[in-house]
Amino acid sequence: MNYFRVMSEKIFPYQHLFNFTSAIFRKIGCSEEDAALASRVLLSADLRGIDSHGVARLSGYVRLWEVKRINSAPGIRVIHETPSTAVVDGDSGLGLVIAPFAMQLAIEKAKQVGTGWVSVQNSNHFGIAGYHAMMALEHDMIGMAMTNASPLVAPTFSVERLLGTNPICVVIPAGEEPAFVADLATTTAANGKLEILQRKNAATPAGWVQDKKGQPSTDAHILKSGGALLPLGGDREHGSHKGYALGAVVDIFSAVLSGANYGPWVPPFPAYVPMPTGMPGKGIGHFFGAMRIDAFRPAKDFKENMDKWIRRFRSAKTVEAEQQVLIPGDPERIMHKERIHAGIPLVNSVADELAALGQKLGVSF
Amino acid sequence: MNYFRVMSEKIFPYQHLFNFTSAIFRKIGCSEEDAALASRVLLSADLRGIDSHGVARLSGYVRLWEVKRINSAPGIRVIHETPSTAVVDGDSGLGLVIAPFAMQLAIEKAKQVGTGWVSVQNSNHFGIAGYHAMMALEHDMIGMAMTNASPLVAPTFSVERLLGTNPICVVIPAGEEPAFVADLATTTAANGKLEILQRKNAATPAGWVQDKKGQPSTDAHILKSGGALLPLGGDREHGSHKGYALGAVVDIFSAVLSGANYGPWVPPFPAYVPMPTGMPGKGIGHFFGAMRIDAFRPAKDFKENMDKWIRRFRSAKTVEAEQQVLIPGDPERIMHKERIHAGIPLVNSVADELAALGQKLGVSF
Repeated sequence: MNYFRVMSEKIFPYQHLFNFTSAIFRKIGCSEEDAALASRVLLSADLRGIDSHGVARLSGYVRLWEVKRINSAPGIRVIHETPSTAVVDGDSGLGLVIAPFAMQLAIEKAKQVGTGWVSVQNSNHFGIAGYHAMMALEHDMIGMAMTNASPLVAPTFSVERLLGTNPICVVIPAGEEPAFVADLATTTAANGKLEILQRKNAATPAGWVQDKKGQPSTDAHILKSGGALLPLGGDREHGSHKGYALGAVVDIFSAVLSGANYGPWVPPFPAYVPMPTGMPGKGIGHFFGAMRIDAFRPAKDFKENMDKWIRRFRSAKTVEAEQQVLIPGDPERIMHKERIHAGIPLVNSVADELAALGQKLGVSF
Repeated sequence: MNYFRVMSEKIFPYQHLFNFTSAIFRKIGCSEEDAALASRVLLSADLRGIDSHGVARLSGYVRLWEVKRINSAPGIRVIHETPSTAVVDGDSGLGLVIAPFAMQLAIEKAKQVGTGWVSVQNSNHFGIAGYHAMMALEHDMIGMAMTNASPLVAPTFSVERLLGTNPICVVIPAGEEPAFVADLATTTAANGKLEILQRKNAATPAGWVQDKKGQPSTDAHILKSGGALLPLGGDREHGSHKGYALGAVVDIFSAVLSGANYGPWVPPFPAYVPMPTGMPGKGIGHFFGAMRIDAFRPAKDFKENMDKWIRRFRSAKTVEAEQQVLIPGDPERIMHKERIHAGIPLVNSVADELAALGQKLGVSF
């Protein structure tokens, strides 16, 4: 923890933030059940250390509701299905509520025919992909979640921003070891990492962003002047066409399959940014998958082998003696364990914004 | 085409290489049907410009057969299934034959219940992932293929090589536009790109490989002295933990789900490299998927939107005026069109090796 951080943050107990967040969602018209679910999903980001996707976004969701781009009492419904697939229309609801509905549907289908795959249209931002994919674990299933997002990423060779940071999450159960939880933006660096550097007024490493002419930049504020995040790989020589392709797959599975908006037409998260013109679909899109382990082999055999896999990787010889090869999900799990007891640190600007939001809606922070 | 290349290569008609390759596969005991299929799959790599995975590997497959690690007349069978899943035992056959069998099975399941997912154990190298995934296109399905491979890649922080270049291929049909075909190794650079630099005795760009102590290197020959390829991203600061996580997912879907070998226990492709000890499974593993478009929305609607997606990306403003944003699969499709007519260039060392192979097995090259 560096000096900057200590100076500008305060720690809040989980339950305090949960009660506040639920009350805010109730105030904008969510049912009690939806408000609790949305709060659990949103705060799972803070607990796991993905601060950019947690309670810091609460005011942003409320502003979307204020401009009528979020429907707090949606009629979420299945508009098409087969034994292993479905398409869900989220009726402009909170993605925080629509996504668990769709993931649960994928799980139910997997119970019946081995796997379930659900594409979603007419939704909004769903928090962290990990929350939804991890719902599969208690059913001994592999879980997957992805979503498209506001266009901030320039494909290889492009100066235009055509893709979101489009995360892919894959969650795989193990036996005695904790589950494997890969949850990754298909960019070199997630937008949240850029925001941390913005607050510090620090430069980015090379290969994270480009300026409005497509030239390399290390300015953490460059997105505000027409710059773009770069796909995983950074540049062509280092495989940025692969990060671009992966982000494109997420966009197509989430939105072209479901009938949501894709590419540069994805509705922006900030409510003050005007909607794109000529939108080809409805809202933003997500994609979820569930695969029953025992649709392939007995869960016990699988888990024993996953434990062996995890232990072999964790015990690999490392470059520096003090390092350890991490299993995807390790840092977030450790953070969760710490914050659920010790509380969640919020930088003062976020805490102040929440206090102002509470004052406006009549909820004490 | 540079001077080096012109000096050391010769062009062969596709049909000539097909006849030769089929005859070689017949000589090692493949049925006529299997020999033709294996040749089509192998040469699809040469046609698409992925020279490292094509006929240059033919001698390698024969050497695996000589040491009895490939069974040329396998009894490929389904050992477990549900309506949307199956596990296939390849009986140590050519992956070039097992993979199309498994992909066809995924397609049949998708016809029945919307999607099909097949994990494969007891296989060998399957050529390019793209061939198999593209089988889905004629059925108006999305196709997916992945495989694990000999350990050449060091996870983030590791000096040990624990993963293969583990490719992910996703193929998505369009309407008037050609299909979207993303086929990517989960490393910064595929091993084939390293081989090109080895032949030229050229250095690699930074971020492709590390030496046996895990230090950065630009030596294209470094894998021969204990070095490793790096996951997509290159280093932690540029997201190598994401490339590592993606390669890990491929390994687990291909091998932990199916009962094949995974991680450092994947059997090496070169027949002279001893097999690992304590192997936890059978052969190498693959994973295939097929999703019927109309299990989500009418194929016509989907294809119209894919065309719109593709055209928007292709027409994006680029950094340099002479560039164009490419759609995944563009370079390989253009290469295929050229080589199917003009022939396939082979470097002299490959042509010489094929001639020697032919002489040994009594097939004229």
